[in-house]
Order: sequence, then structure tokens, then C-alpha cells
Amino acid sequence: MAARRNMLRAATMALLLAGTAPARAEDGYRLWLRADVPAGPIPRVTLRGDGATLRLAAAELSHALPAAIGGVTLALASDPQVTALRLPTATLGDEGYLVRRVRLGQRDTLLITGNGERGLLYGSFALLRHLATGGSAATVALASAPRVKLRVLNHWDNLDGSVERGYAGQSLWDWWTLPDFKDPRYTDYARANASIGINGTVLNNVNAKADSLTPRYIAKAAALADVFRPWGIKVYLSARFSAPIELGGLKTADPRDPAVAAWWKAKADEIYRAIPDFGGFLVKANSEGQPGPRDYGASHADGANMLAAAVRPHGGIVMWRAFVYADTDPEDRAKQAYSEFKPLDGKFADNVLVQVKNGAIDFQPREPFHPLFGAMPKTPLLIEFQITKEYLGFATHLAYLGPLFTETLDARTGRGAETVADVVDGIAEQHALSGMAGVANIGRDRDWSGSTFNQANWYAFGRLAWDPTLDAAALAREWARQTFGTDPRVVEPVVGMMMASREAVVDYTGALGLAHVMATGHHYGPGPWVSDLKRPEWNPVYYHRADKQGIGFDRTRSGSDAVAQYAPDVAKRLADPAATPERELLWFHHVAWDRRMSSGKTLWDELVAHYDRGVAAVGTMRATWERLRPLVDAERWGKTATYLAVQERESRWWRDASLAYWMSVNGRALPAGATPPEHDLAWYKAQQFPYAPGHPE
Amino acid sequence: MAARRNMLRAATMALLLAGTAPARAEDGYRLWLRADVPAGPIPRVTLRGDGATLRLAAAELSHALPAAIGGVTLALASDPQVTALRLPTATLGDEGYLVRRVRLGQRDTLLITGNGERGLLYGSFALLRHLATGGSAATVALASAPRVKLRVLNHWDNLDGSVERGYAGQSLWDWWTLPDFKDPRYTDYARANASIGINGTVLNNVNAKADSLTPRYIAKAAALADVFRPWGIKVYLSARFSAPIELGGLKTADPRDPAVAAWWKAKADEIYRAIPDFGGFLVKANSEGQPGPRDYGASHADGANMLAAAVRPHGGIVMWRAFVYADTDPEDRAKQAYSEFKPLDGKFADNVLVQVKNGAIDFQPREPFHPLFGAMPKTPLLIEFQITKEYLGFATHLAYLGPLFTETLDARTGRGAETVADVVDGIAEQHALSGMAGVANIGRDRDWSGSTFNQANWYAFGRLAWDPTLDAAALAREWARQTFGTDPRVVEPVVGMMMASREAVVDYTGALGLAHVMATGHHYGPGPWVSDLKRPEWNPVYYHRADKQGIGFDRTRSGSDAVAQYAPDVAKRLADPAATPERELLWFHHVAWDRRMSSGKTLWDELVAHYDRGVAAVGTMRATWERLRPLVDAERWGKTATYLAVQERESRWWRDASLAYWMSVNGRALPAGATPPEHDLAWYKAQQFPYAPGHPE
Repeated sequence: MAARRNMLRAATMALLLAGTAPARAEDGYRLWLRADVPAGPIPRVTLRGDGATLRLAAAELSHALPAAIGGVTLALASDPQVTALRLPTATLGDEGYLVRRVRLGQRDTLLITGNGERGLLYGSFALLRHLATGGSAATVALASAPRVKLRVLNHWDNLDGSVERGYAGQSLWDWWTLPDFKDPRYTDYARANASIGINGTVLNNVNAKADSLTPRYIAKAAALADVFRPWGIKVYLSARFSAPIELGGLKTADPRDPAVAAWWKAKADEIYRAIPDFGGFLVKANSEGQPGPRDYGASHADGANMLAAAVRPHGGIVMWRAFVYADTDPEDRAKQAYSEFKPLDGKFADNVLVQVKNGAIDFQPREPFHPLFGAMPKTPLLIEFQITKEYLGFATHLAYLGPLFTETLDARTGRGAETVADVVDGIAEQHALSGMAGVANIGRDRDWSGSTFNQANWYAFGRLAWDPTLDAAALAREWARQTFGTDPRVVEPVVGMMMASREAVVDYTGALGLAHVMATGHHYGPGPWVSDLKRPEWNPVYYHRADKQGIGFDRTRSGSDAVAQYAPDVAKRLADPAATPERELLWFHHVAWDRRMSSGKTLWDELVAHYDRGVAAVGTMRATWERLRPLVDAERWGKTATYLAVQERESRWWRDASLAYWMSVNGRALPAGATPPEHDLAWYKAQQFPYAPGHPE
Repeated sequence: MAARRNMLRAATMALLLAGTAPARAEDGYRLWLRADVPAGPIPRVTLRGDGATLRLAAAELSHALPAAIGGVTLALASDPQVTALRLPTATLGDEGYLVRRVRLGQRDTLLITGNGERGLLYGSFALLRHLATGGSAATVALASAPRVKLRVLNHWDNLDGSVERGYAGQSLWDWWTLPDFKDPRYTDYARANASIGINGTVLNNVNAKADSLTPRYIAKAAALADVFRPWGIKVYLSARFSAPIELGGLKTADPRDPAVAAWWKAKADEIYRAIPDFGGFLVKANSEGQPGPRDYGASHADGANMLAAAVRPHGGIVMWRAFVYADTDPEDRAKQAYSEFKPLDGKFADNVLVQVKNGAIDFQPREPFHPLFGAMPKTPLLIEFQITKEYLGFATHLAYLGPLFTETLDARTGRGAETVADVVDGIAEQHALSGMAGVANIGRDRDWSGSTFNQANWYAFGRLAWDPTLDAAALAREWARQTFGTDPRVVEPVVGMMMASREAVVDYTGALGLAHVMATGHHYGPGPWVSDLKRPEWNPVYYHRADKQGIGFDRTRSGSDAVAQYAPDVAKRLADPAATPERELLWFHHVAWDRRMSSGKTLWDELVAHYDRGVAAVGTMRATWERLRPLVDAERWGKTATYLAVQERESRWWRDASLAYWMSVNGRALPAGATPPEHDLAWYKAQQFPYAPGHPE
């Protein structure tokens, strides 16, 4: 009792408050849009025009502009006062913007202009970004137009509120209370997307239910479209190809059947009555159990074109996924999309895009670019990235995907100097359509993406969809400055962490071109030993082919000859292990454990070194973050610190489990100095995660 | 273009901001705890002692107390300075509090005291409640001790993040990131519960998975327990009875098998090593497919006592549910719990409570009190209410459950003047244990409970668990003042809405004692016609037994004789249709459609009048709420207004669908002036809601 008698005075209240304050401003909800209504005088924002989108742009500016900016004017390029200035607005297209100090009427003002309202909205966000990242108010002059037309999120959100491969809580869409209740969060979602230039969203999972096309769900989608419209965002739906059977009572979904085409036409008409600017359909057909035209002996082009005809009168489009591999086809899975789609080049209607994943397998931590890029010049190819980290540690591992995105976009296809980005923007081929899709990492969690750093992947995707030539490090810096403030003591270490993070994941999960070595189903943690799944290409052993002598998938002529799907120059290089980049070596070649690498180490020793490097890199991230503690708000700092601790523990788990397995196959000892795995292989094999998120049980 | 040339000046910015401001303070997150840190001087809070709970109490006070309160002192009753005051603290128990102006040391102060730290925390919240509801700072004098020992939430939360019968988003528990990440929201949850006196929480669904008892999940529960502990909240787990087989590899879960008992003993020891103050187990056994002791011919007492022995050395308890009905038993389902448990009175270990739902079927909008109350005097009966509105319109319908709770608690058991509340508090029987459980309506939605008004049900449950004799209207007023402020122009209409709301649901879903007339599975909307489910007692027709002549379940001697399960006085009254309250008439009697009711109307006309009254009552709520628009913040007002519109539409659906069906059975016309159903019966039968929340597909 004696000890308790000391009086603690109210002077200690500040301390008490710190531990228990229920209101937390820094919970991540505000994403990279953290500028507040400035104290003091609000700058004069003059709005010439009265569209809903213009009004949103003006409101954004008045929220956040410092008075020092002086007067700002929002006006369309067609405004006579703007026309008189003879500004270079012709190349801005519908969505581009120009921000420049001008004399307008009788006044000096900072003009934000463009050919359409959306351009002015994007220009307003660009100005705010410029200022929030430390840009000068005095000398600002910005101009940009998107290089890609369709900048689209793919939500793998199910109608029951679950999200396939979602690690940020339930679906943002509360289908049950829609269309009546329009959660204010839907507006905040649209605003965040508009701020980075995203202009479309596919609401439902590509593994689609036909119900999403019923009147009840069309009305719900229409309510969301109404919220998104002034932010320049169109709504799309994933369409289940067999819907004419399930909803229409037809006997077939054969795309060549006139009754099927008529059903889709009527369905499209019905959707457009509810959503006049409906974007169109995304279709996953004849892939992983989904129905499709191949069920009837028709081609993917037959299927896509039939749907395209249904939406064409309304200006709609079809995004048709090339992610296919047959249940029965023994061909190298990496080859199947090309085999199926390459012959269809030139056969698709002009309102169809073929949606191609960045790599030929499935969103692995590293994949060579998909051989379809460069192989279908007559077809607009919409590239699909995965923003959600199905294979990169879910929400808890820090992995900035900017370098993953740009690695593919910057890759040379082998057709002249063409890059994948050039294929995607379609400019050279003069495609009317172009697009980039990202599988969203957005859910109902308060911080939207499951962690602060995951927000950077949403951000980088949006910015790269606007301009695929942007630099990943520059985007990281841009994001960090908006998210944590411009203090270089924070920004530079954060950018350093981000830029090293994805390579760390590659290193601790399996470097040198290894892929698909994860556990089954939920895809969390290591499972290189898995060999008992029904389809051969579901098993990690199918991909790494490790044996006593060596490891890797021979995709040269002596193997599956997948390299032949690339343009000749690329194919020739990849056919030669010595010319293949070491980071992709085991993707293309089966190589002896003793092979000498450029480091002078054997392949085996090099692989071990990569695992160790990956673990060490996470340790470095933790140490860096620890030093930032005084400079970052407590709540975001603490959650990130916790997640980094998880990541470090699990990077060891990945390393140890993988090494235990490889040693069981190759019978080799670890290089001198390498730490042996903490447990034996049986222990790692026994780990089970029955309720992992993002995966239906 | 001409129209666009008009300049909109920055003067309109206020208007612009209103439509788009991203920060929203009034999103419901703060529940009824809305007092802010006051501007101006902070009152002096003196803390005598240094426990974690005391520090939380002091912090709460300093957050929210107005300076006008003067000095406040938190000190245990055992503090010599307090002892010297000879205050009546002996009857406060461990958790009670006393708040009184005293002279302490040399100073006048407002003293908050009690025999334990939790008492001081509860006293602090009571003081804040007193002030927030308009109580005087000058004359405050409070004293209260809980009448019920275990005030427990039951979370029907699954390990995959779904919530059975949950309508407020995903489970609050992010099992995947536990135990590493302790979401700040867990603290806010504990704080909200502590503010109303809840002192326990069962983390996982009564339909339990054995996995919740694995080391991995015990560690996660322990992390939550660490967060909750200083708030006075113990953690409990639902235990799957067959866990010794599933986890332990035993051949049996027979409670009489020594190996089974030893397994549970070791498991309890393991849990207590991680959670030293673990509360104990909740068990749903031999009910709706769950395993239990009856699988081995052992009794519920055998099962409960075996588990009770395992937790007894650690001070733990077992809550054993009486909600049972056999898969094979043709006995009236309403009778089965009594038949099974009544003979076991006196057979349970003294650290077992039998958990009994408020009524004998399953949380219907109205049920007569469960006949077990009053029938097991030797056993502490823990009453179970459903706070989540499985049968009362999910999150969207406004139904304040205070009157539902108190209707049961105030019911006379027929043993002298005993009420159900007297049975529950166990004071007369001198039970060492007593308890009240509420099936939580809490999820990860920002406003916790799916709507602002649903928060009132969480609130009322907690307050009634503290004192089951409290008045539902007084609690509504208390909640409304804290939630919307003390302006009587808001409070009185809100209380009026709340107090009429549950009866409105009864009226539009089926009054006069009808029950279990809802659609199958998800339990949303009407389904009185359902007759094709496998078990007879799953079908609405089993309960209402409507035919050409009449309607209702004869539970008198000429029928199932369920009335005989009540004490003789009650049984006698309920055996006579004329003595049975009309609101329970059809629960106990099969009655002719032409029967004359107290209103002078026939039963049929009276039933129709109730449907119309229910629909009209929702219209009245809408009109009342519409008038409150200028007085309530936009975000909470808007969501509630939207939900009331949904409720009005759906109340008509309930009425019309039900009437269409009854008319198909009784062949009667509607009374003069009654509106015919909007659609025919086939239309209502065809309505499907495949992705309704809270129900596994």
C-alpha cells in the first residue's frame, strides 16, 4: 500500500493522454492526400464554368492551396479568354492539363486548363501534388496528358463481401445496402483514384457470378457509377460468360448462337439504361474453371467480338483476358496464352482489348515479360499488374512494386527499340484503345490497403498507368513526400527502403528466376516441396524441377521451347544460359548446382547468398525504420514497425524452409558461414494456415 | 458556352467544401463517448495509486471533464484517507463505485472510490455519463454496484473473419495479423465496453472450430487479453467439444473418459499460461450439428463439469448453452431445452452457468420468456440476448431492443414475485455466479454496429447487464443524450422513435405471438409459406400452423402442452386463450380467424391492423427523423434517413407478402380500407437474396 500512496498529479495528464487518446488522426485513411484546409486566408479560386467535375476540382484546390499561390483560375481551353492566349492545348487530348501563370482578363492568375473537365480535375491534383512534394508556388508550370487511355482497377471483389486475394478487409462495396446507401467512403475512393489519374474500375471479381448482371445488382453498380462519374471514373463489370444460361434460361452460351448474342445485346441495353456511361465488360473465359467460348468450340475472338457487338452501340468496350491454361493441356503453362491468342491477332473487333498479365505465369515476385507483348501488333494489349500482394507477403510484407511494374514496362520486346510500355500505350500502332489494369489492393480496412506502404503500390500503379515511362524511384519519392511530409530525413530513408524492398522479397522467396514456389491455395509462405496437387502445373516442383544435379525449367529448344515465343533477338539471347540475365536464369534453364555464376560462386552458393541477402535487407529496413521513429506519427510508425518485424521473421522462415528443401534434394551442405535452417524440413512442411485471408476455404 | 461564362467566385467555396470535404468527424466511430478534451483549463485529477486501470480512469476524466467540476480524486476505498471518511463502500463489491464530494486531506474534491480499480474506472465513466446526459456538476453523488457478475459479449466471429449473423462488416479481430499487430481499435472496443460495464468477451463463434484452441490461436487470444485487461475485460473462448479428437488425436471426446478430461486439463493449463486471467469456456453442445456429450450418451452436466474441472484450478468458469433441439426429436422445439436441462438442476459444478436464451425458440422479435427461468433454482442461469438483429432487419432496420430485453427481464416467473431479472442476478438463490450475455452486433464497420441506432442496443445491453432493473426508456434517453447531445428537441423525438421501433418490427413482421415466419437461411424478409425444409421445426408453417380455420401453435394440453413447463400460476394463465396476453396469443394457441379480440375486431382484422400499424410506425419514424435534419450532423443523419427509407419499403414488403400468404390460406378478403398487397404471392415467394450478410452460403 505504501507504494501506492504517492500522489500522481494532474501534471502527468499529458503522459496519460498519450497512451489512451481515442481519436487518432494518423490512421492512414487520408492516403497521400494529406493537405489540410490551410489556416489563414484561402486563395481565390475562380471557376469559369459549372460542371460537377469542375466544381470538385475547385473544391480540391480550396481545401489545400496555400494563400501564397495567389489567384487560381480553372477554365476550359475552349473558353474564349483561354483561346486568346494561344496555349499548346491541342496535344492534351480529353484528359490532359496545362498549368501555367498567365494574364487572364485583367489579372495575373495561375491558370489550370485543358480540353475537358477531367483535364482540369487532373491538373488541379497535379498542382497540389507539385506543391505537396515541395515544388515551388512561384515557378509552377505543368503540362501532361495520359499516354494510356484506360487506367483501370480490377476489384476481385465477390458479391458476398469477400475479396479474392484481398488483404485489406472486406470489399469496399457494401452490396447489401446499395443502391440505397452511398457510403461517403465511395466518394473518398473515387477522389483518391482521380488524384492519380485512374479513370475506370471493374467492380466485381473476374471469377464472376452471373448475379452481378441481374437488375438488382445493376442498380447497385449504377449507384456507384453515380458517385464515381464526376471524378471521371467509369464503372465496368466482370461478365460471366455463361450468364445467358444461368440468367436467361438459354440452353447454350455459344457466342455464335443468335439467341445468345441477342441476350447479351438486351443485357447491355439494360445496363446502359441504368449507367449511360458504363465502361464495358471484363471477361475471364476458359480459365481456371470459368466458362467461355472454347466450351463450344468457338474461339476467344468469337466470344469477345460477340460481347463487343453488344456494347458497341453505347460506346462500350470489352477487356478479354489472355490468362488461360487448359485443364487438359500438357504444354508448358507459360506457353499456353501465347499459343491460344497469337493466332487471333487481327481477329478482334476494334472495341476489344486483350488483357495480358505482366508475365506468363501469375504475378510472381519476378517474371520475364509476357511473350504476347510484341506478338500481337494488330490488337491493343491491356497490361494487367497485380497491386495486391498475393505472392509477395500479403499486407504485412513491405514490397514496393514500382520496380516490378517498370521492370516489365521497360523491357525490350525485341521488335526494334520497342518496349512493353510502347506496346501498352499503342501509340506506334495507332490503336484507338490502350489500357493498364491493376488488381486492386483496396478494402474496407481503415488504411484502405492493409498498410501504409501498400498505399504506395496503388499510387505507383495509377501514376504509371498515366505515364508508363515514369521512374519507380521518382514515384516512390513523390509518394513519400505526400505521405510523410517533405523532410528529407524521412523521405530519403523511406525511398531507400522502398526501392530495396521488392528485390528483398525476390531474394528471400527464391531468386535467380525461381517462381511459383509458394504454399498451396492461400499462397502464403514457402512450399517448394509441393508435388501432390491434381494438375501438374499447380505444383511448385513443376516450375523449379530441382533434382540432385540441378534446378530450373528448361524452356529452350531442349525443353518446352517457350523462348521461341519471343521475338528472334530476345529468343536467341534467352536460349543461351550465358546470355540470359541471371535474375531470370532458372525460369529459362535447368542448370547444374555447380554452375559458376558471374560472382564466381556456384549456383548453389549464389542461391544461398540471395536468401541471406533477402533476410538481411529486411533487417536493414527495420533498422532504418527504427531510426525514423521520432519523425513519423506514432500510429503509422507503430503498425509499420510491427509489420517489418513480422516480415523479418517470415523472411527467415522462407529462407530456412527453402534451404531445408533444396538440401534434401541436392544433398549439399551449406556454404561456410551460412546459418543452418532453424527447423528440419518436416517442421516446415507441417505448417498450416487454414484461415489465411484472400482465399476461399 | 454562354451559360458557362458566368464566373463563380471563391465566395462559393463554403458551398463547394460542404459537398466534398474528405474528413468527416461524425462517422459514428466515437459511439456514445463523444466528449472532447475541453477547451480551456483542464480540471485537476488526482490519482492515488498507480495501477494500469487507475491510470486509464484518470485519463478518461482528463479527456472530458469540464473545469467547472473542480478537483477530482481517484482513490481506492482502502486508502487511509478514504477509510477515514467512513463511506458506505462495503456493499460496492469489487466493481462498484461511489462518487461524492468530500473533504480529503486539506482539500474539497470530488472523490471517486470503490474497492477495486475497476470500480474506479466504472465510477469515472459513470461521472462522465452523468455530466454528458445533463447531470449537475455541483450536486453529483453517485453510487452503484453491478447486480450481475458476468457481463459478457458473445462474438459469433469466425476465424476466417466472417461473423455469423454479423451485419457490421468483418470481425473486429484480425486473426491473421494477431498477435503481432494490436490494432488501436481493440483498445477503443475495450474502452467502449468498459464505459457501460461489460467485463467479458467471448472471442469466437459458439459454432466453434477446434483451431481456436491451438497454440497459434491461443497466442492471438492472449494478445487481445493483454489489450483488454486494464479495461477490466476478461477473454473467454468458445470451445469445440470434439477438440480432443481433432487436435489431440484421441478416439473419443466422451467427457467420462479420463484421457479426454486430461486433455482438457492440459489445454486449460496451456491457455492459462498465456492468459493468466482467462475467463473460461462457452460451449454449444449437441445443438444444430455441434458435437457434445450426448454423442456418447453422457449428459450435458457430465460435459460441463468435465470442462469446469479443467478450468477450476485457475478460477475459470464454463458457460454451457441450453439452446438445444435434437435432429430426431419430434417434441415441440420450444419444449426441448427445458426437457433436457430441467432434470439436471443441481447436477452442475459450481463454476458452471447454464446459458439460456431469452425465449425458447431463437431471438424472435417477440418471445415469451424461456420456461427454464424459474425452473432451475439450483443452477445459475446466464441469460443470452441477441444484440445483433438476425430476425429484426439486420443493420438497416431501426429497432431499439431495450424494450425487448426488459420485457423478458421484467417477466414474472410465477414463483412468488420473482422476475426473470431476479433469476438472472441470482441474489435470492445466493448463487456465487450470475451472468448476462449478448450476441454482439459489433464489426469492423466504421460505426461499429452498422448504424448509429444499433449502437444503442450494445449500450442498452451493457447497462442492463450491470443492472437488469433499469428502464428501457431511461436508457434510450441516456444514450440519445450522449450520442446526439442534450438538446431536448433532438432527444425527445429520438427516444420516441426508439421506444416505438421494436413494436413496429413485431407489427410488420407478424404480431400477436407469431414467430419464425422469416425467409430461410439468411432470415431476411418474409417467408411464412416455407414448408419444404428437411426438419419440420425449420419451417415457418411448423410455427404458425395457419389453415382455413385459424392460426397459431397450440401449446396447451390439447397441443404440445409447453405451457406446463411454466410455474403453475403462469401455466394456468397461458393455458387459457382469454387470459393469455394478446401479444403472445398465437405462440400458445391455435385460434380461429373469426375470434373476437379485445379491440372488438376479429383476429384476422386485428392481424391486418397490426401489419398496417407497423408500416405506419416506420413512416412516423421517417417523418420524425426528417424534422431532425437541421439538428443532427449531416453524415449520421443521412445514413439513418437512408436506412429508414429502406425500412419503410421493406416493412411494406413484409406486410404485403405476409397478407398475400395468409389470404391464400384463409381465403378471406382484407378488411375494408386495407390496401391490397402490391404483388401476388408468387412474386413474394420468388424473391431471392443469395448474398445476404451474416449467413454462410
